[in-house]
Order: sequence, then C-alpha cells, then structure tokens
Amino acid sequence: MNRKALEQQIIAKQSVLCVGLDTDLAKIPKHLLKEEDPIFAFNKAIIDATQKYAVAYKPNLAFYEAEGLNGWKSLKKTVDYLNDHYPEVFTIADAKRGDIGNTAARYAKAFFEELNFDSLTVAPYMGEDSVRPSLEYRAKWTILLALTSNPGAKDFQLQSNGERRIFEEVLRQSQEWGSEEQLMYVVGATKAAFLKVVRQIVPNHFLLVPGVGAQGGSLKEVMENGRGQSSAALLINSSRGIIYAGQDEDFAKIAATKAAELQEQMARYL
Amino acid sequence: MNRKALEQQIIAKQSVLCVGLDTDLAKIPKHLLKEEDPIFAFNKAIIDATQKYAVAYKPNLAFYEAEGLNGWKSLKKTVDYLNDHYPEVFTIADAKRGDIGNTAARYAKAFFEELNFDSLTVAPYMGEDSVRPSLEYRAKWTILLALTSNPGAKDFQLQSNGERRIFEEVLRQSQEWGSEEQLMYVVGATKAAFLKVVRQIVPNHFLLVPGVGAQGGSLKEVMENGRGQSSAALLINSSRGIIYAGQDEDFAKIAATKAAELQEQMARYL
Repeated sequence: MNRKALEQQIIAKQSVLCVGLDTDLAKIPKHLLKEEDPIFAFNKAIIDATQKYAVAYKPNLAFYEAEGLNGWKSLKKTVDYLNDHYPEVFTIADAKRGDIGNTAARYAKAFFEELNFDSLTVAPYMGEDSVRPSLEYRAKWTILLALTSNPGAKDFQLQSNGERRIFEEVLRQSQEWGSEEQLMYVVGATKAAFLKVVRQIVPNHFLLVPGVGAQGGSLKEVMENGRGQSSAALLINSSRGIIYAGQDEDFAKIAATKAAELQEQMARYL
Repeated sequence: MNRKALEQQIIAKQSVLCVGLDTDLAKIPKHLLKEEDPIFAFNKAIIDATQKYAVAYKPNLAFYEAEGLNGWKSLKKTVDYLNDHYPEVFTIADAKRGDIGNTAARYAKAFFEELNFDSLTVAPYMGEDSVRPSLEYRAKWTILLALTSNPGAKDFQLQSNGERRIFEEVLRQSQEWGSEEQLMYVVGATKAAFLKVVRQIVPNHFLLVPGVGAQGGSLKEVMENGRGQSSAALLINSSRGIIYAGQDEDFAKIAATKAAELQEQMARYL
C-alpha cells in the first residue's frame, strides 16, 4: 500500500487507529476455546467489528509463535482474511526483526512474500545493512524502532554520544536508507514530550505510536505533537484496551465501542 | 543445559564449534528437493555427519520463517531431532528477538517451551525489561547481542557515550540482569581486536562468535583473545563454510570434513 492510499484511508475513516492483535489464548473469551482455531476466530470477530474505526491491524508475532505451528497457521489466516476482505486496511507484522543482510532478506521474504503483510517492524541495533533488505521491497513499508515506550528504553536508546541520543541517531542516519514513502518509525507514546524532538528530525515520516491505552500514553499529546508536516502521518496503536475490553459473548461489540471512542477522539484532531 | 554440561562437552569433543543451520532451499543439493521435507532432510544429514565435531547447532530463524508453515515444521523437526538423538548438544534459536516485557515473555515461551531450545538470541535495543523474561527461565540461556560482525555494527553499537561505547554499555548493564550460568553474548569475530575489551568487561561469560568463515574472522585470534577465565567459554559459529561446502550427493561427508578441520584447529587452543 502506498502512502497516498494510506492517507486517503485516514481521511475517509477520520482515524489513525491501529488495532494490535496480541491474541492470547489465556485472555480471549472462554467460549471461543471450543472453536477449531480460537485465535483466528477471535481475530476475525475483532476485525469485522472494528474495521470501520481502524486503518491498520498489527498482529504481534510473539503471541502467534508462542502457540507453535497452530499459531503460525492462525497468523496466516488472519493476514489472508485482512487482505481478502479489507484490502484498504494497512497490515503490520510486529516482529521487530534485525539481522545481517542475507538473513534480513529472508525475514523480509517471510513477511512481505510468504505472509503478504504491508509492513514489518525492524530493530536498528545491527545498523544499516540489517535494515536495507526490507527497504528493497519498494511497495512495502519498513517500520524502524526509534524510541520505544517501555522502561528499558532509557538503557540504550537514551544514551547520548555528546551530540545526540541513540534514538536520534537512528532517526537521523536511517533517513539516508529509505524515503518517507516506505520508511516509518516506532515512537513510544509515553514519551510524548519527545515527539517534538522526533518531528524536528523526521518532520513528515509516518510514526507508529504504541502505548496509548494499556501503556499509558495520552492520545491528545500524541495527536497534537506527533503529526507530520503534510498529513497526520500517524498510526496510533491500542491492543489490550480494545481487544480485551469485553470478556463474554459480546466481546467484539465491546471492542467496537472502544475502537469507536478512540476514533471519535482522533477525529477531533484530524 | 547447564554450564558445567556444556563445558564438559567442549572438553570431551575438544571443540567449541557451533554449526549454523542457515538452510536455504535455493542452496541445498538439488537431489534433496524431491524429499518430502527437504530442509529437515538436509539438516538431519548435516547433524548426523558433523555432531562428532560440533558442540552446538544454531538454526537461523529467518531461513525457516521464509518458507512459511513448512519452514516452521522443518524447524520443529530439527530441534526435536537434536533433542531426541543428541541431547548432549547445545541448541540455539538464532531469532534475535526483543520486545516489551509481556511480549518478550511470549517469545521466551515460543523458543523455550514450544520448541524446547536450550537458548535464544535476544537484541538489546529495548533494554532491561525486554531481556529479563527470557532470563526468568533459569535452566535456559539468553544470548544477548553485544557486538555484531556486520558492517552496520558501527552505526549504533560503536557510538560512545563519552565513557564507553554502546556495546560496552550492553555488556556492563546486562551483567546485573543474569549470571554467567545463563547469559551469553554475541561478539562478532571480525572484530577480534575488540575481544580483549569484551573480556575486560565479561571475563567469564560464554561468547557466541559468528563470522568465522564466510564472514572472514580469524579462528586463531578468537581462540587466543576470546577465551574465558575459568574455561574456554566460547562457541564459534560457522554456517555456510560447513553446510554448503559440498553441493552433491556427498554434501554431508564434505560438511563433516570441514567441521573436522575446524575442530582440529580449535583443539590446538583448548
């Protein structure tokens, strides 16, 4: 999906909502466990109920890998379902991969060809040659970790080389590697004060902002300080706050209500 | 597998060789493509032929994920085969995972429970809470990326905060998170000059050293400068230099010859 199509979807839906599919067998409603594929059944219901309010879906790979082969099957069914039924929706493989060139190329193949996601999250620790292989897929998006929303973000991302902090180095250097048509950044919402700093370095790249909701970020702060120069250029993720809001037969309806609430708040700033 | 058992295996085999299973359908001998599971058939032949000379096997996850469901099946068969037939051998899931706490816990479950690997490679960019969940498996090993062997290592790992470089920060801080009984580090062999620096910070932790062979590191330099205080405390990986040395029916025999050559060189320094 190209940038223009993503931006048009954002305008049409008046939403920058990304729904995180951190689907956990221990947390989904109990009645789904009798389904042949409970993870997919849950995802499908969530997607159908929330797709009016969301522009993107982000399966978190760890939750699928933890279920082994069955998890991988559920993941494939989920992305196939999204591509078949809601082709306008942006899909994110939240896998945070990162390895040397020939290996990174295999990860790109896995997520862009085998699974046909629109985008893949990538970790920057191994530097340029670990990021370039996914950027070689010009019609796909690489979403590079810059500043994350967890406590450990301070351990290395906030170390300074005297001139700038490591997450700023990541933003600065990586702009040479890919354009704003195919490179986004993960920027943690609980660091909304940092959004201005980020926007000084990358005024117009899309930012994927996790941490609104369960991780405690403020939507208002993100929408006000995070938007891009020429468009909103934001995807704001909520996972647990939407998908586990309900625990009974009506879980999808409750998820839709939560998604609609977020969408309404987002619309105010769009 | 605990440290003592790994050290005993190293002494018994006079080897610190880790064979990297970067198994690629485009590179394995053509006659295997008619097998029901060519990737597993290749791995099994390589393992059977080289296990006398190797103390560890390291499937590189990207190569399995690139084949989708079939790749995941081949991976599971490979680790099951190793656990069933060569339980003394150390198994490494080279997955370089790294994410916030609850997600990192799911990755740990995937590789330690679902697939039953002895160890998992983890990326440090997201800091302490992204590494702790795998360390909570006391009988398993976390192998943290410190200094990698690729050109991009310089982009962020070698940035200095004035006192020390980021890879040194990773080594220094992470020692608080886990002991030398369950925490190893990835240190790139092409930076053998750095091994002395690494050993000043972590004198006795095991190091996993990629890059001997195809990536151009020198075995002698690594064996001389990389060993630990109380034992060799090294695992030296070779992937392509062993597994793709032969291209015909006798590929496993040729791989064994290459592994034996490396083992012989290693024995000189043990």
